[in-house]
Amino acid sequence: MTDLFTLRIKNLKNILEKKGPGCIIILNDSDIFYLTGFYGINSGSTLLITPDRIYLLINFIYIEQAEKSLKSKEIKIVLYSGDKFKKLNDILEGYKFDSVAVEYKDISFKDGTVINKLLKKQGKKITDAGGVVKSLRAVKDNDEIKKIKEACRITDIALKDILKLGLDRIKKLSEAELAFYLEELLIKNGSGGKSFDIIAAYDKNTSIPHYIPQKRYIKSGAVLLDFGCRFDNYCSDMTRTIFTDNNKKCNEFKKIYDIVLEAQMKAIESCREGMSAGELDSIAREFIISKGYSDNFGHGLGHGVGLEIHEEPVINKGVKTILRENMVITIEPGIYIKNFGGVRIEDVVIVKKNKCEILYNSRKDFFILR
Amino acid sequence: MTDLFTLRIKNLKNILEKKGPGCIIILNDSDIFYLTGFYGINSGSTLLITPDRIYLLINFIYIEQAEKSLKSKEIKIVLYSGDKFKKLNDILEGYKFDSVAVEYKDISFKDGTVINKLLKKQGKKITDAGGVVKSLRAVKDNDEIKKIKEACRITDIALKDILKLGLDRIKKLSEAELAFYLEELLIKNGSGGKSFDIIAAYDKNTSIPHYIPQKRYIKSGAVLLDFGCRFDNYCSDMTRTIFTDNNKKCNEFKKIYDIVLEAQMKAIESCREGMSAGELDSIAREFIISKGYSDNFGHGLGHGVGLEIHEEPVINKGVKTILRENMVITIEPGIYIKNFGGVRIEDVVIVKKNKCEILYNSRKDFFILR
Repeated sequence: MTDLFTLRIKNLKNILEKKGPGCIIILNDSDIFYLTGFYGINSGSTLLITPDRIYLLINFIYIEQAEKSLKSKEIKIVLYSGDKFKKLNDILEGYKFDSVAVEYKDISFKDGTVINKLLKKQGKKITDAGGVVKSLRAVKDNDEIKKIKEACRITDIALKDILKLGLDRIKKLSEAELAFYLEELLIKNGSGGKSFDIIAAYDKNTSIPHYIPQKRYIKSGAVLLDFGCRFDNYCSDMTRTIFTDNNKKCNEFKKIYDIVLEAQMKAIESCREGMSAGELDSIAREFIISKGYSDNFGHGLGHGVGLEIHEEPVINKGVKTILRENMVITIEPGIYIKNFGGVRIEDVVIVKKNKCEILYNSRKDFFILR
Repeated sequence: MTDLFTLRIKNLKNILEKKGPGCIIILNDSDIFYLTGFYGINSGSTLLITPDRIYLLINFIYIEQAEKSLKSKEIKIVLYSGDKFKKLNDILEGYKFDSVAVEYKDISFKDGTVINKLLKKQGKKITDAGGVVKSLRAVKDNDEIKKIKEACRITDIALKDILKLGLDRIKKLSEAELAFYLEELLIKNGSGGKSFDIIAAYDKNTSIPHYIPQKRYIKSGAVLLDFGCRFDNYCSDMTRTIFTDNNKKCNEFKKIYDIVLEAQMKAIESCREGMSAGELDSIAREFIISKGYSDNFGHGLGHGVGLEIHEEPVINKGVKTILRENMVITIEPGIYIKNFGGVRIEDVVIVKKNKCEILYNSRKDFFILR
């Protein structure tokens, strides 16, 4: 039986061979994990795939981890200390093709210039891989979907536990404490930890989409929670905006809440295989604009979720990427009003043939915590 | 009175003007914070410094945060959506110089190629900034040292609390739970959270320098803890290897522990302004080699610590960087034996004129937890 990792490398090789000499240098840690089972986060490891052999260049710190986690015996571990690109150049000297693909987004201008200079001497050069591994990763297989679903299930539980806390206890917490408590719940419920720095924003702070929680205590008003976890390296991502009191400001919030929720539902209802990411974005965006908030939804509708919290496809204005079955994406419109506050509602969904499947059960109607 | 941020920009400009037209594009979030007070982590923000004006290019998501946190009114915020480099190119059109410095390590090959192509049309090109802001950041000012000291103080307390737990309670924890408990202690004691993913490794797992804690329960043997926190954005970093039993294996561990500790103390005793990073590294390395462990210390002796957990200077074999007063670095030799285990001992120190100052009070003698 061919294992998942061997199959993924085979798929990649098929694409590469249609385009060129079938040789690629991979520098992104998540790409390397996807293809090999070795996850050396910030390890500087490099995978070189050639038509006949696969090499994993690795330094001392990660060698034991690599030996234990590599899934295919066909991958040759090459230990390096010092100049990785020199080593890469030496290996490539044994091959006759004249170009090597590299993800131009993943290599620094410094390193790209160095490797090009080295390769020039053997009549080779780098070419842009154009996101080939990221495109493969955008469509999830069953194993990946299972893990993402589990991450989403744990996220649902964590939110439920927060809501069960009740008004009195939440009002004893600062934003930073609430964020930390959420993280604790994610871990206690079986995840490997948060998938990004958790946002817990109170009142006016909700208007800052990527707010960093402070030691500000929660009182009456809106609380925006944007959080997620990892299960077996796969991420979840959820946003809910909840309310702690039934006062005048909450009524003003309700007005924008209802618009954001309707925009989100409209996008979810139309999300399906075959439409472009830009089309999906425009469904929520046009609705928000039609309600008079054209200047208040300044980010994209969503993004792919998988090994990385933000990955392909990007769901934003004008993006031409076609949505395909088993892409996993967020749908997260928002309205942000400076010095007042903001509302964002976010689900993770799987794109299907004629619909999409929401991976959360958490409520998202406007409600006031009691 | 000139504030810190204005002073830092002035220092940078002085260096730039000696080398070229005094224009630089800065893409690294920590560099931007260091110079402006705005910390847009992963925000894609860009700072453009020209002899007469400073521009901060920023997207919708971060605009409110930027307006609130920028320290100098001389910085002009430029909102962009879509193509940042096009905007940058438009601004640069107003200037006559023919080159713009960019940190080649901080810009992707893709973006570097794009901006170069755009600039070519106006007779300009990018040149490598060669780590100019990182070099400035390597030497800490009083404000930064105060914050790092506070992060180190909190780290000391967290370790003390762990040791106070006692053997019985530690043996009820898994590596992952111990790591999470350490994080909780760091937060409870007033930090802004961990400065990197905490390592808690038990027994054989201690031989993997960048180990990821699992659900493995701690029993008799070695426990390696590598952790740190952030205080006002500044990091601490500490490693201790402790023991939970007085058995035969602990005695074998003691042999390498004593060598690592002596290597660390020797490096600390000789660390002072004026020596090179490579010289400092060699003091610990040569000692470990002389004891017969030449293949077991496969990483550098240390690294700078500040806004980033790993920053300039790199302390490793052959590095020529000269240590300067008020550089803050780690000194962390280790010996790792595959399938047996490893020992690492790490302190943060400030380089001084004729010595260095250790920022921790935590014990580091070999001892068995009771």
